[in-house]
Amino acid sequence: MRWCRFRAADKEAYGIVDGQDVIEVRGTPFDKFERTTIRRPLDRVKLLVPCIPGTFYAAGLNYLSHIQETAKAGGKENYAPERPDIGYRAINALVAHQEAIIIPYDATEKVQYEGELVVVIGKKAKRVTEEEALGCVLGYTIGNDISERSWQRNDRTFWRSKNSDTFKPIGPWIETEVNLNLMRTTVRLNKKVVSEFPTNNMVFSIATYISTMSRYLTLHPGDIIWMGTDGPTHNIQHGDEVEVEIRGIGTLRNPVLREKEG
Amino acid sequence: MRWCRFRAADKEAYGIVDGQDVIEVRGTPFDKFERTTIRRPLDRVKLLVPCIPGTFYAAGLNYLSHIQETAKAGGKENYAPERPDIGYRAINALVAHQEAIIIPYDATEKVQYEGELVVVIGKKAKRVTEEEALGCVLGYTIGNDISERSWQRNDRTFWRSKNSDTFKPIGPWIETEVNLNLMRTTVRLNKKVVSEFPTNNMVFSIATYISTMSRYLTLHPGDIIWMGTDGPTHNIQHGDEVEVEIRGIGTLRNPVLREKEG
Repeated sequence: MRWCRFRAADKEAYGIVDGQDVIEVRGTPFDKFERTTIRRPLDRVKLLVPCIPGTFYAAGLNYLSHIQETAKAGGKENYAPERPDIGYRAINALVAHQEAIIIPYDATEKVQYEGELVVVIGKKAKRVTEEEALGCVLGYTIGNDISERSWQRNDRTFWRSKNSDTFKPIGPWIETEVNLNLMRTTVRLNKKVVSEFPTNNMVFSIATYISTMSRYLTLHPGDIIWMGTDGPTHNIQHGDEVEVEIRGIGTLRNPVLREKEG
Repeated sequence: MRWCRFRAADKEAYGIVDGQDVIEVRGTPFDKFERTTIRRPLDRVKLLVPCIPGTFYAAGLNYLSHIQETAKAGGKENYAPERPDIGYRAINALVAHQEAIIIPYDATEKVQYEGELVVVIGKKAKRVTEEEALGCVLGYTIGNDISERSWQRNDRTFWRSKNSDTFKPIGPWIETEVNLNLMRTTVRLNKKVVSEFPTNNMVFSIATYISTMSRYLTLHPGDIIWMGTDGPTHNIQHGDEVEVEIRGIGTLRNPVLREKEG
């Protein structure tokens, strides 16, 4: 099943994507819900961030060749993590499919994409085993972890390098039925493939992350976990369009603009 | 005005603290609201986390003598920050006034309190000047930034050292009328004063933080910013009680329990 959030006729609601249509739903995928009889063409609604998380988790370095790329570039995190220590990102940075990534005017040219699988938690989880972990997942969506590399290297935290407004595109929807091992992530910059990797080829698996996190933290319905990216990343600039496709989910597409000085 | 959130008679609502009573409110302090005629004794309601933030920001090192203490203890962040680079904490870790701080069974004995002033954003803020910054603030509450120092030193992120469930007590309420320069923070461990400092004696002021953050980030109503702590901190253990009092706001009080192995 494909869950989306959308705005149409001045109303925001969750919906179920059915072919080229969206069926409006009363309630949410995290609680009770019922399908309404209202059906709209998908291209006539505005897709929103597919859920507003309570806490926004990010694995960071979780694929071997991206870790090597990061080390080569002289970044701070130039080693393979020994344990699945999760990180955090900020809700303010989330934007939906088709919304613009806006580069702050004083950013350097080193603003880069990172195509990522995003896990959406569906059930409260505390102290779950690796075997139980995927049972707490509602579904999967796509994220683009935009990063300003000079700020990432020089600031004390990742606040503006990774959490500036619009730096976390997410969507277009949440797919509940996937085969993780068949997934492939493809990133396109202006329609040209710039990165491609098997999505589930992670250093620490989704189940390992969830089980480890839930030892200390309660995961709540709607929380999201970004699983990291693989391979090289490239600079993006005003006028570009970035697409992150994950086979089995769909394609997240966002134009890039640079803010005018002001 | 003192804003709280409370539960009474199986209902959760915002309220206005009026002497020893709470006046129930329809709506929220961040939007439209009206006072109802329902008034309850404060000691008959359960106070909740005073607001659920969208994003949970934390300044970290923001007082000089705490920075020296941290350096002495050999922590990772043993330098004075050069810029107000904000950090992040997790919503899952928040608990209310009187709720227990639960130390995970495998934590070391180095679990410590940090009494902090918490800023609650009241109005959407983007690109505000330092002069405009405090105009976006709804009010102030109190936080206790519980930290497990061995995890803080050795993990790749602060995920469990600072964001384990119950590690972020907050409350008891949000005070909208304060004089920052008259504020004093006092921490008591089992009724004995263990730390005391002028609350507004920060390396970077609240206005500087808000203005700097809002250059890149949109602050939203309900977002919270924890401003850091001063002076030494001490270990807490099962059976302790920690109080953080800030003159002009009130007292945040939490018992400490250690989780049973299992």
